[in-house]
Amino acid sequence: MNDKIAFGATYAPMGAEVAVHDCPADGAVPRDLDGGFFSVGADLQYPLSPGNIAFDGEGHVRVFRFQQGRVDYRSRFVRTQRYVAQDAARRLLMPMYRNPLCDDPSVAGLSRSTANTHVIHHRGRLLALKEDSLPVALDLESLETIDPVYDFGGQLPHGTPFTAHPKICSHTGNIVAFGGEAGGPGSDAIALFEIDRQGRKVWEAQIRAPYAGMIHDFAVTEHYIAFFVVPLLFDGERMQRGLVPYSWDGSRKSYLGVLRRHGDGKDIRWIATPTCGGSHTLGSFDDGGRLYFDREISPSNPYVVIPNRDGSAYDAAGGTSYLYRISLDLKNSAAVVEFEQLYPLIAPLPRQDDRYQTVPYRYGYMGCPAPDDPVRWKPVCYARIDHQTRHYVLWKAPADVSLGEPLFVPKHSAAREGEGYLLGVGWHHSDGLRSDLYIFDAEHVGEGPLATVHLPVQAAPQIHSWWVGGQEYPQRSAVAQVDAKA
Amino acid sequence: MNDKIAFGATYAPMGAEVAVHDCPADGAVPRDLDGGFFSVGADLQYPLSPGNIAFDGEGHVRVFRFQQGRVDYRSRFVRTQRYVAQDAARRLLMPMYRNPLCDDPSVAGLSRSTANTHVIHHRGRLLALKEDSLPVALDLESLETIDPVYDFGGQLPHGTPFTAHPKICSHTGNIVAFGGEAGGPGSDAIALFEIDRQGRKVWEAQIRAPYAGMIHDFAVTEHYIAFFVVPLLFDGERMQRGLVPYSWDGSRKSYLGVLRRHGDGKDIRWIATPTCGGSHTLGSFDDGGRLYFDREISPSNPYVVIPNRDGSAYDAAGGTSYLYRISLDLKNSAAVVEFEQLYPLIAPLPRQDDRYQTVPYRYGYMGCPAPDDPVRWKPVCYARIDHQTRHYVLWKAPADVSLGEPLFVPKHSAAREGEGYLLGVGWHHSDGLRSDLYIFDAEHVGEGPLATVHLPVQAAPQIHSWWVGGQEYPQRSAVAQVDAKA
Repeated sequence: MNDKIAFGATYAPMGAEVAVHDCPADGAVPRDLDGGFFSVGADLQYPLSPGNIAFDGEGHVRVFRFQQGRVDYRSRFVRTQRYVAQDAARRLLMPMYRNPLCDDPSVAGLSRSTANTHVIHHRGRLLALKEDSLPVALDLESLETIDPVYDFGGQLPHGTPFTAHPKICSHTGNIVAFGGEAGGPGSDAIALFEIDRQGRKVWEAQIRAPYAGMIHDFAVTEHYIAFFVVPLLFDGERMQRGLVPYSWDGSRKSYLGVLRRHGDGKDIRWIATPTCGGSHTLGSFDDGGRLYFDREISPSNPYVVIPNRDGSAYDAAGGTSYLYRISLDLKNSAAVVEFEQLYPLIAPLPRQDDRYQTVPYRYGYMGCPAPDDPVRWKPVCYARIDHQTRHYVLWKAPADVSLGEPLFVPKHSAAREGEGYLLGVGWHHSDGLRSDLYIFDAEHVGEGPLATVHLPVQAAPQIHSWWVGGQEYPQRSAVAQVDAKA
Repeated sequence: MNDKIAFGATYAPMGAEVAVHDCPADGAVPRDLDGGFFSVGADLQYPLSPGNIAFDGEGHVRVFRFQQGRVDYRSRFVRTQRYVAQDAARRLLMPMYRNPLCDDPSVAGLSRSTANTHVIHHRGRLLALKEDSLPVALDLESLETIDPVYDFGGQLPHGTPFTAHPKICSHTGNIVAFGGEAGGPGSDAIALFEIDRQGRKVWEAQIRAPYAGMIHDFAVTEHYIAFFVVPLLFDGERMQRGLVPYSWDGSRKSYLGVLRRHGDGKDIRWIATPTCGGSHTLGSFDDGGRLYFDREISPSNPYVVIPNRDGSAYDAAGGTSYLYRISLDLKNSAAVVEFEQLYPLIAPLPRQDDRYQTVPYRYGYMGCPAPDDPVRWKPVCYARIDHQTRHYVLWKAPADVSLGEPLFVPKHSAAREGEGYLLGVGWHHSDGLRSDLYIFDAEHVGEGPLATVHLPVQAAPQIHSWWVGGQEYPQRSAVAQVDAKA
């Protein structure tokens, strides 16, 4: 499960790959912004099959490329094995979300990845992620697909699931990742791996979850890894019936699981908590004795597209999530999990300064409805939250705009936490979803954007985003060299 | 001068390069349509300079690629020398239509082509044309620019103007072309050349016009070449003042000029006619003794963006053109030019079955306002005209749509005249100019489209179009081979 498809225009299908050169802008695009603002979302290659859900759209990657105050835009469908096979057949061949029983026989053995959920940078490539499959590797400049089944040089067996929300260790830069249902659909196994900056797998382990189901995100701290599992259960009966093979079981508890990093996984502890839902981590850390795990939590099933196992109707209020701090005394084996709501903001897509993913951090950023907005699922504000003061500031977008997940970009490599820019895309509902990119001083979000970059068309759909600094690109392209001379 | 910029949405700037794979369609796309429907129009790289006109936008080429009932769409800005230099400088460097006095010194010696008016096929390449410059050669599949100054292997000196409306000889397939102002801005010289299918220049000559000005189109028959020049005069004073260097002089006559093909040009005869305007040829032929030259004619200045030299305001009725047959008795040196209005339809962009460009022909196709439409410049109908019966049929587009120039495609290489498909693009004014491609049986245009292909975005601007049959492509791409197997 990825995200709330009904959450504003950020998930609206687009269907066209687009390039715009030297996008027009109001205001001054900061000249020290050098790099790429990459996003991916679920778009439609062919119309969804009856009963399928929009989370199963094909990955469409886009980038706003910043150089010396100039912004170029480009988007491309990811050429997953699924996309390429469907393009040749001119129809869907994997027509149901995470249900291989519905696949056309011709695609047996191909990766089922849609690569539609998140993108990260690794060794000069962009990795497009879908939690049920290995990553897809893309070229940073062209967005062309280089490897539709990126197995880190043969270190991860084909078929390995790889979370869409790996963490970057704040100390080492290593990727820490997991794979849910690691033994196949309905498996309660979770695979864990850590990959260093040179691409070497430096740790792996396997644990078991309290039940088989969807685990969308997790937490990594300096010394620990934590999961918060919610009862979005695998549903074999639905799989057999050719449906999306998940349902919500409100009779089951949620669980916090904690294990040490770099151990063998046998120390995993699962601690039951009241039933609740939610998907995304904001940040997490430990102080040696206590784990802090900040994430969005909803009272019950967060996804309108996933049925309740007891047959009850979707509860919109119960599916609405707020930011909580989950904490646990790690020294006390009898300790209970503590929950603290942090802010009165609906915010299912919170982000932090990504340099602080595994250590104590202060700031968060998110799109959210205005506190007085009756349209609860339409994000029309960007919020910057400050855990030190427990205050937040809001910027409200123009009246016809809904916003995508924002992304923080450090101003330079030595910038202090939160010193940098906040980037976010808005879709104009009254102008055919034509889109703008807003660029804020991340320390003054409430003052509105420093610059607004205009696209002539709708931006490609967006779930999650990543920043790749210019110095991380493998080499400047010929075009970029020409630009640099100008 | 190219076309009427205010004539519907077909000239609306777009700004984004787009690719759409396997476009959705209503109805059945004919499986025997194999090839590319190429168009070009004037788009904006940077906003026009004050006083400049939209005819000076940068060429943006697009193609609907048909294979086995599938349609793929792609568009690219032409990488003219001008575009590339401006992209590097991030600003206009040739800021005024056909006025080199306004150019930035850095672009001295570069081609001034915008490549925005017409496209034709030549030896497996697409040539993008602008009447003041040599063609730009593009790859048929990718639309990448291969040669920004295509001089036919060194046979045409750099700086040679090359009309946007060359004719293809119906007998030989040779390209017959001319260049106006061949001696530089304000020159009354017209260069003539014929290039065979192997790319060899097989004929050239030079003549002089009655005055220096804009000559947008011409006529080629089996034995003759004809011009109809209208007093869109070069205006040196306006050039010196940094303006578009043309104005309309209603005190000057129009002229029909006729010369023999393959002669030395000295036989050119210019015959004065009443002053009138208009730009485009529909078709032309001779029967040995008489020349027939079918074209659109307006009573006076056809372009709202070109001032009248006498300071009078633009006359919209006087600028409205209808189809006329101009004819001349070639045996009688004292003969006058005869004019006959053919149809009561406003139609500045008429097209024929292009296999009949230099021989007698029967059918024409054009976008036009509905006869009862008060918005005279908005083409909402496609007309098929039949010179044999002097009747026409109309198809009227949906209420919010305006149409671009239509293009006839023969059903197969041995198809009789008019046996084939008519292709045309419509822009939805009430849906952000989102566009559809209409595919008609060209013999039953009045019955409406066989299929309607949907783009998710605005189609790139269109002035003129060309068909390239699949057998004319140099080789099938790897993608096409995959498709063919499916």
